[in-house]
Amino acid sequence: MRYQGLLQTYKEYLPVTDKTPMLTLQEGNTPLVRAENLSQELGLDLYFKYEGLNPTGSFKDRGMVMAVAKAVEEGSRTIMCASTGNTSAAAAAYAARLGLNCIVLIPNNNIALGKLAQAMIYGAKVIAIEGNFDRALEIVREITAKHPITLVNSVNPYRIEGQKTAAFEVCDQLGEAPDVLAIPVGNAGNISAYWKGFKEYHAKGKISSLPRMVGFEAEGAMAIVKGEPILEPETVATAIRIGNPASWKTAVAAAEESSGQINYVTDEEILSAYRTIASREGIFAEPASAASVAGVYKLKREGYFKGGEKVVCVLTGHGLKDPNIAIKSIGAEPLVVQDSEEAVMAAIAKLEGNGV
Amino acid sequence: MRYQGLLQTYKEYLPVTDKTPMLTLQEGNTPLVRAENLSQELGLDLYFKYEGLNPTGSFKDRGMVMAVAKAVEEGSRTIMCASTGNTSAAAAAYAARLGLNCIVLIPNNNIALGKLAQAMIYGAKVIAIEGNFDRALEIVREITAKHPITLVNSVNPYRIEGQKTAAFEVCDQLGEAPDVLAIPVGNAGNISAYWKGFKEYHAKGKISSLPRMVGFEAEGAMAIVKGEPILEPETVATAIRIGNPASWKTAVAAAEESSGQINYVTDEEILSAYRTIASREGIFAEPASAASVAGVYKLKREGYFKGGEKVVCVLTGHGLKDPNIAIKSIGAEPLVVQDSEEAVMAAIAKLEGNGV
Repeated sequence: MRYQGLLQTYKEYLPVTDKTPMLTLQEGNTPLVRAENLSQELGLDLYFKYEGLNPTGSFKDRGMVMAVAKAVEEGSRTIMCASTGNTSAAAAAYAARLGLNCIVLIPNNNIALGKLAQAMIYGAKVIAIEGNFDRALEIVREITAKHPITLVNSVNPYRIEGQKTAAFEVCDQLGEAPDVLAIPVGNAGNISAYWKGFKEYHAKGKISSLPRMVGFEAEGAMAIVKGEPILEPETVATAIRIGNPASWKTAVAAAEESSGQINYVTDEEILSAYRTIASREGIFAEPASAASVAGVYKLKREGYFKGGEKVVCVLTGHGLKDPNIAIKSIGAEPLVVQDSEEAVMAAIAKLEGNGV
Repeated sequence: MRYQGLLQTYKEYLPVTDKTPMLTLQEGNTPLVRAENLSQELGLDLYFKYEGLNPTGSFKDRGMVMAVAKAVEEGSRTIMCASTGNTSAAAAAYAARLGLNCIVLIPNNNIALGKLAQAMIYGAKVIAIEGNFDRALEIVREITAKHPITLVNSVNPYRIEGQKTAAFEVCDQLGEAPDVLAIPVGNAGNISAYWKGFKEYHAKGKISSLPRMVGFEAEGAMAIVKGEPILEPETVATAIRIGNPASWKTAVAAAEESSGQINYVTDEEILSAYRTIASREGIFAEPASAASVAGVYKLKREGYFKGGEKVVCVLTGHGLKDPNIAIKSIGAEPLVVQDSEEAVMAAIAKLEGNGV
């Protein structure tokens, strides 16, 4: 049987009506991979929810399929967002699928075409303004309030509805809820969505317990941990470089209600976890994703676990989203040798001496 | 129920024994997305098998999981390949998972670190030789013949075994075999593997008919179409830039036995299909993948179809694998305007005038 996508699979939990188009790029249905090596090292039963294998390479597809389907249901022919990354890629892909216009507003400082190329190849029209990101979002809100254009940034309430399906999948894949759900926190919509999903599954009797929600901000953008917005957030994990999270309150509520916590990790810890995930488990995720794994290492050091807990780390996006960080992280250039069997064998021996 | 990966799912069709480690990164189980807009345009029932959503971003994971599992079963602790692209990424990921050494040999001309970074972040050790790709492969063959190191290039017979599972999935997802299977042809292992898979499913009674296999080489690398090796193959579709396909004979046999054909498409046709898939269906695939869709367009122009055929195009890798082509393909830079609602609305109107 062909997988039918999120709207069909979870329609009883979603605002899907007779008039909602059954839009899908076969988002969701992403792997839950057991972290065999790290489970052993940490004394946990550790899994990765690998959201990088959504169609556009990040978890944003879950919320976007719902938001775009509802936009069409409500008669919209144009969607709009302020975003330089994963949100714009997801918006553009679903707009392409339905033949909608997709307008992406970005600040005109440091346009990284690589980050935008994905949205543009899907056909998004990109407009750069002489102002910062907050101003771009403000203009998007003004325009979409007055014109028949649908806002698909995270303030669109359907985004959270779609995103909560990831919690359903985790439970369906495990056969129960995990003990702990570890997740990166940037705009804080994803932790809010997972918690909503777990609670709904629990209310329906699909799971008998709820996980503790542990969220991790990057140190340079830890608004929630500090209790105040960060004016100039900075972190290598660009997908969570957010100084004033839109879903701040619901994220705090998720942590409190679940007896979890919002904590933080440093860029160094993020990059270390980023390399560890790839080199020890064979999973390549974008730096922001590694915040969840870095966080689990931090909790382990702090004695948080009693041992054996079932822990799911959400890996929010694919490592291929940020090739420059990968290139910077590998450190060594290839070893160059002559084209002989002997020279290559000598090089292998040398590398083994270096701990190959 | 959690998906268990290819070795477990299709073990009765694979060389899996009691001693084969059940290695998995949850490769396979990739989307079969109906091409809603192109089906209508072309008068076909057209689907994309989106192999870019395998864990390392290409179909190579299917063959590699089998090859690496067998390497371990046979006592190997080191694997080796000559590759600058998808093969090395897949080899490195599975080696990381099992704690094996992975040695990648490349020619020292024009090393594109971006292409290699993925393998390196998974922990592969890369050695560049003063010689070309053919010489690198030759050295890999010499070394693996003499030392306890397993060759995982496509001459490793387990690769085809793993890759044939994609044909099983297509049939499982459709509930039958398609009428036509369109696929890019580079080294020609993939068309050989699909045909093997379809025949095995047919022999077991899982499907009642077999598809016509239509394969497409890039014009600048069309060795099979020309009937002779191409000394200096050249095409924008780097993943099929191969002048002397390793699986030449089995590819020709697949086309002949299935009443299909090996044909070719130009770089222009490939890039056009590459943009069409993204902008009209919301699917981002690497340029080589687009050869299958470009080929279907070509066959349509040539009157090959009677109409309504069920056609599956294999999209072999994710578009994020080759960000530079995406940047080159988008053409336009973002439009820069002042930070006012009026200026942005004027820009939108202008873009709509340009056919937004």
